[in-house]
Amino acid sequence: MNYTTIIGLLAGALTTFSFLPQFLRAWKTRSTKDISLVMYIIFSAGILMWLLYGILLGELPIIIANIVAFLFNLMIIYLKLKYK
Amino acid sequence: MNYTTIIGLLAGALTTFSFLPQFLRAWKTRSTKDISLVMYIIFSAGILMWLLYGILLGELPIIIANIVAFLFNLMIIYLKLKYK
Repeated sequence: MNYTTIIGLLAGALTTFSFLPQFLRAWKTRSTKDISLVMYIIFSAGILMWLLYGILLGELPIIIANIVAFLFNLMIIYLKLKYK
Repeated sequence: MNYTTIIGLLAGALTTFSFLPQFLRAWKTRSTKDISLVMYIIFSAGILMWLLYGILLGELPIIIANIVAFLFNLMIIYLKLKYK
């Protein structure tokens, strides 16, 4: 594994797991009024495009990060629709 | 420009501009209670790592997307700190 891949994995870990505190906050407070649903829908569409991009480049950090980030985004969208 | 680059640019446009509706919502409602500050701080750190990754790979879509996304994230952090 070269150092570009290591930086990519670290970048992916940060941007992916950043959604966890947002998910936990929404889950605990049961309030998602200030969260933009449009943001998460557009972001999820973008994640799927990044996933395709990662597959085309054959870059594992991009592929892994975007699969996990997509799941976190779906979880936040679920809470947004549940609590409004 | 090959089709991988086009997909990357489209992916970057989506994930980057997805933050715009979140910024506009916070700006209009002057309410950011439900937004996780920790998420945006970690996400911003991740964006800087993706930027470095893009520079190392020499991939323009990754570089451009992450510069713009970083600016949007700073704007949301500013509103989060301003309105709490």
